[in-house]
Amino acid sequence: MSIFKVGLIGFGTIGAGVAKLLLGKEKEVQTAVGHTIKLVKICDKDLATDRGVDLPEGILTDNLSDILDNKEIDIVIELIGGLEPARTFVLKALRAGKNVVTANKALLANHGPELFEEARLQKKTIAYEAAVGGGIPILASIGTSLQANRIESIQAILNGTCNFILSQMEGKGTDYQDAVREAQRLGYAEANPAMDVEGIDTVQKLTILAQLAFGASVNWKEISCKGIDSVSAIDIQYAEALSCRIRLIADARRTEEGLELKVAPTLVPFSSPLAQVKDAFNAIQVVGDFVGPVFYQGLGAGQRPTASAVCSDVIDTVLGRAAITFSTLNLWGKDRAGILVKPSNDVLRKAYLRVGVEDKTGVMSEISGILASQGISIASIIQREGIDKTNPMVNMILMTHAATEGNLKKAIEKIDRLSYVMNKTVCLGVQG
Amino acid sequence: MSIFKVGLIGFGTIGAGVAKLLLGKEKEVQTAVGHTIKLVKICDKDLATDRGVDLPEGILTDNLSDILDNKEIDIVIELIGGLEPARTFVLKALRAGKNVVTANKALLANHGPELFEEARLQKKTIAYEAAVGGGIPILASIGTSLQANRIESIQAILNGTCNFILSQMEGKGTDYQDAVREAQRLGYAEANPAMDVEGIDTVQKLTILAQLAFGASVNWKEISCKGIDSVSAIDIQYAEALSCRIRLIADARRTEEGLELKVAPTLVPFSSPLAQVKDAFNAIQVVGDFVGPVFYQGLGAGQRPTASAVCSDVIDTVLGRAAITFSTLNLWGKDRAGILVKPSNDVLRKAYLRVGVEDKTGVMSEISGILASQGISIASIIQREGIDKTNPMVNMILMTHAATEGNLKKAIEKIDRLSYVMNKTVCLGVQG
Repeated sequence: MSIFKVGLIGFGTIGAGVAKLLLGKEKEVQTAVGHTIKLVKICDKDLATDRGVDLPEGILTDNLSDILDNKEIDIVIELIGGLEPARTFVLKALRAGKNVVTANKALLANHGPELFEEARLQKKTIAYEAAVGGGIPILASIGTSLQANRIESIQAILNGTCNFILSQMEGKGTDYQDAVREAQRLGYAEANPAMDVEGIDTVQKLTILAQLAFGASVNWKEISCKGIDSVSAIDIQYAEALSCRIRLIADARRTEEGLELKVAPTLVPFSSPLAQVKDAFNAIQVVGDFVGPVFYQGLGAGQRPTASAVCSDVIDTVLGRAAITFSTLNLWGKDRAGILVKPSNDVLRKAYLRVGVEDKTGVMSEISGILASQGISIASIIQREGIDKTNPMVNMILMTHAATEGNLKKAIEKIDRLSYVMNKTVCLGVQG
Repeated sequence: MSIFKVGLIGFGTIGAGVAKLLLGKEKEVQTAVGHTIKLVKICDKDLATDRGVDLPEGILTDNLSDILDNKEIDIVIELIGGLEPARTFVLKALRAGKNVVTANKALLANHGPELFEEARLQKKTIAYEAAVGGGIPILASIGTSLQANRIESIQAILNGTCNFILSQMEGKGTDYQDAVREAQRLGYAEANPAMDVEGIDTVQKLTILAQLAFGASVNWKEISCKGIDSVSAIDIQYAEALSCRIRLIADARRTEEGLELKVAPTLVPFSSPLAQVKDAFNAIQVVGDFVGPVFYQGLGAGQRPTASAVCSDVIDTVLGRAAITFSTLNLWGKDRAGILVKPSNDVLRKAYLRVGVEDKTGVMSEISGILASQGISIASIIQREGIDKTNPMVNMILMTHAATEGNLKKAIEKIDRLSYVMNKTVCLGVQG
């Protein structure tokens, strides 16, 4: 039985959850793990706010060197989020001989190669289960339990805020803006929800999954990414009529020509478990060549689920399992044989197009002609009467067969230039 | 990079899957794991049957000592199933200094304490991910990823055969016997399906989960267990009318008075993810005090998913992760502080009772009187006209509030002795 000392950087919502767990369950964790894990320092700029955690005297500090220069601290947990100063702090912690645990997806998606290289150089580890899927142990599953498999595809709901907004829209028939306000009121969405609703958070998490599951090194900015801000109540209704729900899906798929990566609001058939995921839950469906489909669902954010994942990483680090996994996976390693990633314009998708047109002769013929000229074939068309008789616009819904992102973009540009097209065309993905 | 040699005992369906994976993916596994894992011997009585696997010359043997006495073999995979000779072979393998991987839930549920004690004595490991949930990495999740949590409850569908039969009944309206025959025709059910349909397989898997998640040492024969053989098409219809599906649910629940364990066909509301689990899939919902609910779904049986789990154990053993987990969990250890298990008669459940009665005055009053005398209160009653007018029997459906198993049993005995009760009362569980 040894004592492992832990320093925590960042005492926000998640930090407070981790402190509650490590301080409140020290005895239980000791019994389960066989070692004492002691949270000895918490560093934050804000020493005043009460986070509802009973802290031992002298544990809270605003001086980072109380952690970095403390030779007794073995593990540093980084929970400040964002790129800087998180990047600098993690590098310093590694260089000071600490193992690192982080929940920071933006940091890993942007600086993964640099940080992991430094960790290898210092013979230390970085564990990051909480960075994707909150409390769901998806990284451990892919990185260890499914390791005998070649992963064929991953489809996932990775942002609880977006899923909550879409659930509100489908449950209450509210429009996008009202659902965002409701999410903000309940604390699910930030005052500026851009990182969530524009899909940036999701695409960064997909980048991390792509490295782990496929060895793909990719700049998240180059992945095809649409947010949910283009989804309207009317799309939810059309989806329902097509026996589908709309979910913000992160999709990674191994093909003969390389890995396809995309993030988009996507029509998912009721029969798919992803369509059953409600409110702020996250879910991941992984398909392996031997295991087949494995589906995971759980709370993707929040103080306690995220603390569960962070502390499981701390325990793994203490036990030495993290070191084995870290060295075996060789993440972002220069010599890691990775898969080729398809350029985003070549990524295939089935699409749902909602085109708002003046209802007149020849419209359908011209639009389907444009699609055909881009090599896009139409699977089905729904055209409904406008409900508002004073509004001359009708919505035409076109479901396409699989087409490349690039061809879809070009076709939509042409369609949107037509004189009788009254709104920008909405393009969503279709599962399958 | 080292070479680890593996011996496989049992060359049935699962054994053939493991051989396909280890022989077919030796190079891939080597790249991923950093070591060579070499299947060098397969032992089976039957040397003749073609299992569709290309075997290197000399690998197949019917002489067990080719494995046990081969000093070069590090890991023995036991896939013969059943209690003996599996128990003896595993003990011999441990004593010969081999680490063991097994998929044998009956063996662990019956002889876990003895086998794990021997492994500790020999400083070897037993890994058994494939014993519960097939390809779903549920044991690794509970034993490692959720380790910072106190597990509050587990509800699970652990037998694909039963789930397939129930899915058939609800999808096609067929009765139990027809669904069993269909399952047999498709290879989902054995010629003698008793182990599956009577819930024995499920209750043995629950025993393993209870040890891992709660430290509960329990004899599976003492757990309250009902199979699906009492479920009729009419129950599926009543469940549907109550917005529920019937699933064979293994349930473990921490209460202040101890751990409650039970296996029973259970009415699960459509809104629960367990109700959405179809065909031969397995699923497990785990609730932890920090992580909240985490839900897993995947293929619970079959050659390839089970091979995925077995080979992940082999890799964990090679990497040394299995040794860390094995010693930390101290499964079935004498000094493991375990939870008290409630006697099965004290376990609480909400019940669905179908009582087939002659339709005459006073029936309801007498039956509800019997329930009241056992302290069981009724939540709701459905009584429908018999469809067959020539049949004087009507089905009375009583939904009870939570009552103890013992009181339910006594009440049902009394009800079944009433002169106008025409069938044995069917008692199913109700989720929640």
